[in-house]
Amino acid sequence: MSLSKSPLVDIHTHVYPPSYITLLKSRTSIPYIRTFPPSTSHRLVILPAEDTESTSRGRPVGPEYYSIDEKIKFMDVHGIDISVISLANPWLDWVDPADAAEAARSINDEVDAECAKFPGRLFAFGTLPLSGGAEVIGEEIKRLKGLKYMRGIILGTTGLGKGLDDPELLPIFQALQDAKLPIFLHPHYGLPSSVWGERANDYGHVLPLALGFPLETTIAVTRMILAGVFEKVPELQMILAHSGGTLPFLAGRIESCIEHDAHLKAEGKLGKGRKTVWDVLKTNIYLDAVVYSEVGLRAAIQASGEDRIMFGTDNPFFPPLGEEGGKWASVETNYQAIAGALGDGSESAEGALGGNAVRVLNLEV
Amino acid sequence: MSLSKSPLVDIHTHVYPPSYITLLKSRTSIPYIRTFPPSTSHRLVILPAEDTESTSRGRPVGPEYYSIDEKIKFMDVHGIDISVISLANPWLDWVDPADAAEAARSINDEVDAECAKFPGRLFAFGTLPLSGGAEVIGEEIKRLKGLKYMRGIILGTTGLGKGLDDPELLPIFQALQDAKLPIFLHPHYGLPSSVWGERANDYGHVLPLALGFPLETTIAVTRMILAGVFEKVPELQMILAHSGGTLPFLAGRIESCIEHDAHLKAEGKLGKGRKTVWDVLKTNIYLDAVVYSEVGLRAAIQASGEDRIMFGTDNPFFPPLGEEGGKWASVETNYQAIAGALGDGSESAEGALGGNAVRVLNLEV
Repeated sequence: MSLSKSPLVDIHTHVYPPSYITLLKSRTSIPYIRTFPPSTSHRLVILPAEDTESTSRGRPVGPEYYSIDEKIKFMDVHGIDISVISLANPWLDWVDPADAAEAARSINDEVDAECAKFPGRLFAFGTLPLSGGAEVIGEEIKRLKGLKYMRGIILGTTGLGKGLDDPELLPIFQALQDAKLPIFLHPHYGLPSSVWGERANDYGHVLPLALGFPLETTIAVTRMILAGVFEKVPELQMILAHSGGTLPFLAGRIESCIEHDAHLKAEGKLGKGRKTVWDVLKTNIYLDAVVYSEVGLRAAIQASGEDRIMFGTDNPFFPPLGEEGGKWASVETNYQAIAGALGDGSESAEGALGGNAVRVLNLEV
Repeated sequence: MSLSKSPLVDIHTHVYPPSYITLLKSRTSIPYIRTFPPSTSHRLVILPAEDTESTSRGRPVGPEYYSIDEKIKFMDVHGIDISVISLANPWLDWVDPADAAEAARSINDEVDAECAKFPGRLFAFGTLPLSGGAEVIGEEIKRLKGLKYMRGIILGTTGLGKGLDDPELLPIFQALQDAKLPIFLHPHYGLPSSVWGERANDYGHVLPLALGFPLETTIAVTRMILAGVFEKVPELQMILAHSGGTLPFLAGRIESCIEHDAHLKAEGKLGKGRKTVWDVLKTNIYLDAVVYSEVGLRAAIQASGEDRIMFGTDNPFFPPLGEEGGKWASVETNYQAIAGALGDGSESAEGALGGNAVRVLNLEV
């Protein structure tokens, strides 16, 4: 038993390591990095909504995206003791199948080596070579288990191209369960642009980022629930980005719609053996605390349990506009929401700020 | 001052009055009513996801959809004193422009006359002839204001075809504000079917109903906020179906994305004069309590205020499967969530169950 307070742990923090930056610079379609003359600065474009002819096309890409020293500086400014870094979207989803195995190996090794530079301060979620096929993916899962600082994998919502309710993914989920590697589920693809309407460009990147991302996550997990993934791979552990998208708020409606669906009833899919949405939230799912409000965070805590919430920053995204140095408002909002929802200094707040992550992800060297 | 407890008021309850049923029977594409041989029973198909060749195509349409006596029976079973009835989706969005004015007049008059059969127990939200053009819509708003039992209007998310952030809608919103007629915003169109994946049919109607509906509402309101509708028509009052879709949970993220958007900042859209998402939630928005969980309802209450929450049932949808008589589980879940979140018998629970609706919608004859 320790009387010292838990460390502050950031489980939602991204890097584009140098080899990934090199890959992006070699490309001419999303995702890519290039200059847009007359400007000579490099800009990163990862979302279709960012790839429009405008002064704000993409975003400037500086060392905060690829330098591990910048990550440590960011951690020090915010008093973060440990970060569990992950490759930022869109990961390796787009890689040519023939190159997938090698790309994943080199990037995962590079990320693990970055962690080794700051022992005890950095851990990581690895990246799967999804386009490489089942065998290649399975090999990389085994390899990741052997890397010293790897504590899970980051995953988008497309899986092998057909979403996470694809039965072809079940052996991969089983392998991750067997390896005790949790999935950090993170959005990237958003929603079809038609839903944003004709005036979407007037609103900057707000609609795809504020709504597209969390709605994508919600849909992906709900499809997994409906496909019975959590009955078939009952110990699968998932950490959902952005406090589950909107899952805590919609869990009741999803559950009610399932229980009132004539087709599911006729197919014998209701009743015994079914995990409810609430069961899944309380046994298979962890939620980060990246929801930017006490209102949202309280719902996340009530849905999943205060021992299943983990602080995150989404660094290097959402930096302050026009200010340099000092703490980031985006980080402070999420930090303060934990104190507000769970009580400043309380045991459960300490858990959300770091204790839960240390316990679940085994963050010790 | 009265010492009696508030009446139980249902502000989310639909009818398809007989003339609307006749219209639907005359159609061959969604929305429509027909038989699917060999069955001889009439089925209602209102969503693309329901229009597939299956035994569960559409839904059986009986008197619970069009008989006002059935509505009163439902109210009596559940102890509901007052219902504010509204035409169910998809309203008159699909009506030929030349027929819109007459269709709206006849249906609104019919609904008003149904309310008159049970004075004090029934009020209504009217339906606008959206396809008829601005002048026709404006005339119907004036007419609705003169109908004895009308207390607002029900509206979908397409508006005049381009969504609710369409500047062409501003005079209509202004006219509704001037007439003090709140908008009951209700989803219908959901999301493009591609987001549900290849296996969507295996999941019955769950994905479009449980996710498509609330996500559609969330997107529609967020687009209104980003377009500055609530600054331009500052007294506009909206009641959001399904506790705002997911707006209470996502409000923090939306607000953070706005404040961190370089494009909005460059355009001078941040800072003075802007209503935050929270401002809009607490001054322009009311939320029904149709969210099927205490977790969701607490978020709705915290986001908008306990004096802005209103009980609803979504009748005649979500009936019990295979049981007849007695209270509906879908209704009980929402009723009990109010007691759980606000305290059984508390003043704020009484408000959510009816007092707020009586006050805001002036539910007295």
